[in-house]
Amino acid sequence: MKVPPELLSFLKEQDRFFIATHINPEGDALGSSIALSLALEAMGKTTVVFDRDSVPEYYRFLPGHERVISSASELKIMDFNLALLDCNVPERAGIGGLHFRSALVIDHHETEKDFGDIKWIMPDAAATGMMVFYLIRELGMKITKEIAVNLYAALAIDTGTFRYANTSAEVLKVAAELMEAGANPAFVANNLYETWSEKRFRLFIMALNTLEIRERVAFTSVTRNMFRETATSAEDTENFSGFPRMIRDIRISAFFRETEKDEWKVSLRSKGDINVALIASDFGGGGHRNAAGCIIKAPLKTAHENLLRKIRESGSIPK
Amino acid sequence: MKVPPELLSFLKEQDRFFIATHINPEGDALGSSIALSLALEAMGKTTVVFDRDSVPEYYRFLPGHERVISSASELKIMDFNLALLDCNVPERAGIGGLHFRSALVIDHHETEKDFGDIKWIMPDAAATGMMVFYLIRELGMKITKEIAVNLYAALAIDTGTFRYANTSAEVLKVAAELMEAGANPAFVANNLYETWSEKRFRLFIMALNTLEIRERVAFTSVTRNMFRETATSAEDTENFSGFPRMIRDIRISAFFRETEKDEWKVSLRSKGDINVALIASDFGGGGHRNAAGCIIKAPLKTAHENLLRKIRESGSIPK
Repeated sequence: MKVPPELLSFLKEQDRFFIATHINPEGDALGSSIALSLALEAMGKTTVVFDRDSVPEYYRFLPGHERVISSASELKIMDFNLALLDCNVPERAGIGGLHFRSALVIDHHETEKDFGDIKWIMPDAAATGMMVFYLIRELGMKITKEIAVNLYAALAIDTGTFRYANTSAEVLKVAAELMEAGANPAFVANNLYETWSEKRFRLFIMALNTLEIRERVAFTSVTRNMFRETATSAEDTENFSGFPRMIRDIRISAFFRETEKDEWKVSLRSKGDINVALIASDFGGGGHRNAAGCIIKAPLKTAHENLLRKIRESGSIPK
Repeated sequence: MKVPPELLSFLKEQDRFFIATHINPEGDALGSSIALSLALEAMGKTTVVFDRDSVPEYYRFLPGHERVISSASELKIMDFNLALLDCNVPERAGIGGLHFRSALVIDHHETEKDFGDIKWIMPDAAATGMMVFYLIRELGMKITKEIAVNLYAALAIDTGTFRYANTSAEVLKVAAELMEAGANPAFVANNLYETWSEKRFRLFIMALNTLEIRERVAFTSVTRNMFRETATSAEDTENFSGFPRMIRDIRISAFFRETEKDEWKVSLRSKGDINVALIASDFGGGGHRNAAGCIIKAPLKTAHENLLRKIRESGSIPK
């Protein structure tokens, strides 16, 4: 992976960076942002790491997470160069209206619109953390233990700890280098996968109890009542949609979360070639091929029917 | 990892090998045995791969799995050299009484008793598959795609796809080499983790519904009635004991499977330093530090109490 020379010289020349990543951040967004901040500070630069939403509790194991701020109102933004990570338009980071000295973009998502003075966008990279790894190395900076843990977590989250199709030999080699620099796979995995609260697990069981399978689509749901009964909230349902994928014959898992009466936030997960982003877009939503979301306003039974009809129409599940 | 020279010369000199692995085989046992067989056959040797239990359905994605036989009655055993893999006493493979020309052992478990003419036992190796990887390379044989998939599956299973504490940088580097030789991480992961039957998943939900948490121990169970209701069997409960580990505060997960009236096969999984092998041995069972098993004969409530008492006595969970 070749780092653009103009990006390297820009980072070397400039002194102040406002590193921002997308709202509702996950491990790649946070890990790559914190890692870049640590490396730039080691070069003597001043950095700010910004996420409009604060760091979720289960990501507070990332060393340096405390440097992430969620309000920029006290900063003289015009003095900073924006470094937008893991997204490529400022609106994704909730900073659409702000004016920086200049803007650079480092991301592995498809370009949404032309933004930024220096852009490094690599949709083939498994994680933004991969790009930041090469960037830090090209800057001649040491991959410290703190940086290594952040980048390892970034890779782990975006590849499902090396289970998804984006896992390449290169990803595994970089992961090995990060281990040698001090990252501990079991520490990261425990923090990513074994830190559910008991009430979250109770909610998970309730969701599984709603499982219905129709035409190779798995339907599960969580109602506002269930949130009340278990004293949980929307963020506790993260990844619920992934579990029914364990069933061999399931092609699409559709998880319905009640937001208001007769209104459902639907998370879609698919296997293989089935493009759920297309199905989600029929309902005004979007996402990636195997992970997308949308909102459906209808009583649950009708919402299921509406979704199933669109899936049928898409022809994505062979009879 | 250094392969013993006497092992290499023995494999080069001899012509007939009976490769046997432990009963109730998993990915490391099967993957490393099949990989060794493929490499030796490429050297012009005659090999047999034996497992007393046949290959479970969910491991039939391993290329070459069809070469595993579960009866040796038609073979002239005395003509073969035994190669015992992923275990180090023949009783584990259900071949205790048989006499071979000679016996070699390749294993990463602690030595149970002195057995074999040539022994290569490396308890620090993450998987027997790691050892077989180096062995095949030292034999000067090509890591073909078929061999790579088998060894990748071996590594994946024994490291929880690179989530357990035995995941080293070396493991990740070997995994990267196996990918370059043709192993596909997503293909292996899908086959290992996303091939549950619907009825198995229904049984899983039933088991989760029995969840009780006491003193940081998670209790779940499956009764013979549940097997009947879902038309499932004991092998469908594999890994059930691992799931309650997702809960942050849980130190031990204890899964009870009813074998007869008032008799339970108990699978114990622990986090960190808690040694459940010691607890299991109090009930006449055994295993590894973080994964062990035993049988408790009592009604379920009493069985829970008995186990909890032993856990308390062990002092393994701090108050």
